[in-house]
Amino acid sequence: MELKSRKKIHIREVAPRDGFQSWPNFIPTDKKLEIIRLLLEAGITEMETTAFVSPNAIPQLRDAADLMGLVPKDGCIHSPLVPNLKGAELALDSGADKLVVVISATDAHNLANVHRTVKESLEDLQSIFRLAKERGKPVIGAIAVAFGCPYQGDVPEDSVYRLAEAYINGGASCVILADTTGMATPTRILQLLGEFKNRFPQTPYSLHLHNNRGVAMANLYAALGVGADMFDTALGGIGGCPNVPVAAGNLPTEDVVFMLEDMGYDTGLDLIKLIGAARDLEEILGQTLPGQVMKSGPRDPRLAAKYVVARNREC
Amino acid sequence: MELKSRKKIHIREVAPRDGFQSWPNFIPTDKKLEIIRLLLEAGITEMETTAFVSPNAIPQLRDAADLMGLVPKDGCIHSPLVPNLKGAELALDSGADKLVVVISATDAHNLANVHRTVKESLEDLQSIFRLAKERGKPVIGAIAVAFGCPYQGDVPEDSVYRLAEAYINGGASCVILADTTGMATPTRILQLLGEFKNRFPQTPYSLHLHNNRGVAMANLYAALGVGADMFDTALGGIGGCPNVPVAAGNLPTEDVVFMLEDMGYDTGLDLIKLIGAARDLEEILGQTLPGQVMKSGPRDPRLAAKYVVARNREC
Repeated sequence: MELKSRKKIHIREVAPRDGFQSWPNFIPTDKKLEIIRLLLEAGITEMETTAFVSPNAIPQLRDAADLMGLVPKDGCIHSPLVPNLKGAELALDSGADKLVVVISATDAHNLANVHRTVKESLEDLQSIFRLAKERGKPVIGAIAVAFGCPYQGDVPEDSVYRLAEAYINGGASCVILADTTGMATPTRILQLLGEFKNRFPQTPYSLHLHNNRGVAMANLYAALGVGADMFDTALGGIGGCPNVPVAAGNLPTEDVVFMLEDMGYDTGLDLIKLIGAARDLEEILGQTLPGQVMKSGPRDPRLAAKYVVARNREC
Repeated sequence: MELKSRKKIHIREVAPRDGFQSWPNFIPTDKKLEIIRLLLEAGITEMETTAFVSPNAIPQLRDAADLMGLVPKDGCIHSPLVPNLKGAELALDSGADKLVVVISATDAHNLANVHRTVKESLEDLQSIFRLAKERGKPVIGAIAVAFGCPYQGDVPEDSVYRLAEAYINGGASCVILADTTGMATPTRILQLLGEFKNRFPQTPYSLHLHNNRGVAMANLYAALGVGADMFDTALGGIGGCPNVPVAAGNLPTEDVVFMLEDMGYDTGLDLIKLIGAARDLEEILGQTLPGQVMKSGPRDPRLAAKYVVARNREC
């Protein structure tokens, strides 16, 4: 197959936050570090390394500051998630390169997620932007349930654009449109992205797609078609908001990289190393993960056979 | 969301063949019938009900003739798979409405699948077409490994077109392009479909997409964009060629229907009944299936909540 122009796609790895947060048990810090190191070796250049949230609410990430003190800093932007000003302070004190602020597009989900209305979260926003600016660090504004809310159903697009506007006015470097609960389909992706680009043509945006209904990869492909070039993905396809019933994981990083590279895009990532990291993760978690390429191997039969053999030996 | 013109999409259900064939254990005929009845209640109008293959090679389908004698015939086209003339005779004798002949695009896979070279399979083809014509039944020609071969890797497109030509010359009513091992990506789908439609503009075609590498739904969406309107899918996402290492299932019927209906297409199928059937199937098989909508429920939170509750109660 002839390669097209190798358009660059930026992958932001979220397994260390979205995945480790949603795992029932606390994953020991040294195991988290092992996976993070493997991700860096595979070429990951930006990572949602952890979240600075209440250790009572999410004990799985209670080691956030310790972990940030231990992660290799060279060559990777660490952009942890922060739900409020206190989280932002802790994250910046621990050496975060960038912050991800998240607010839901609906009160119902925001209340479930951070126990505040959207309005209350927005009141905190200016002080977070001010603090980050003082420290010279950029802020990404993430909009949860942008394509549908598990409590409310359809989300008025205006709620999404109002939040985006608040982020952009605050100085956000990028807006993440999150399909937190896998309620998007390609038509909805094209509709929202089209209008978003229309309203905010200068604002870089990224997509964060969950696979609760099996449609996430089609959504990513639809977004590619209208020029999207930044995506959140998670090694092995782990992840899932703890405040969403029967949440399903993010798009598996290695599956996304397989598809994009085969289509002629340049992710800058090493598929074989990602598969290795995903298998290591599976071993640490002791459970089969949703990722498919980690089970079937790359496309080249000589390479795939090697992986299949290795797997059979494990079984 | 405004509905576009409700373009019809034809779903051909393959779980009873592709799924039951690949399950390690023989599923009792009455359980197969139970699932088939639920599929018919959900609106399925065409089904790969079974395969007429050697019971030694595939004991899981040794009840093919019995099953065909018991399935409800009204309102559904039963199109079992046949690998050779003997299978075609048995299928027609058992009341098949249509036959699906399958030949691989590569010798390596055809030898593994039916112990014959492509040339040897083609020699049988004319007698199968003749027999079906005598009985007044149409024949679908399926091309396995059309997008990549797990033994050989890339498949020269000409091998696919040569097979298609043989089918069309024989009088096939439709050609199925099968990504038997999940080696397609959207670029490959667009390339092959574009040239196929160019060469055979009058021939209806269908896509049979496996999800070994997590890309099948994106492939389906890509195909939709160039006018594809027929797909093979399998309830719960079961399936997988027994001659493919670490095969993964077909696209789950209910996930495909969820996406298509949300996008404004008309599948004529009842999503809620499909979810019910998929959960029944999961119970019969005693194993979590790949389908996602059966776990997360439909998009409407009131309906989804009902499903989530029902599921939690089961756990």
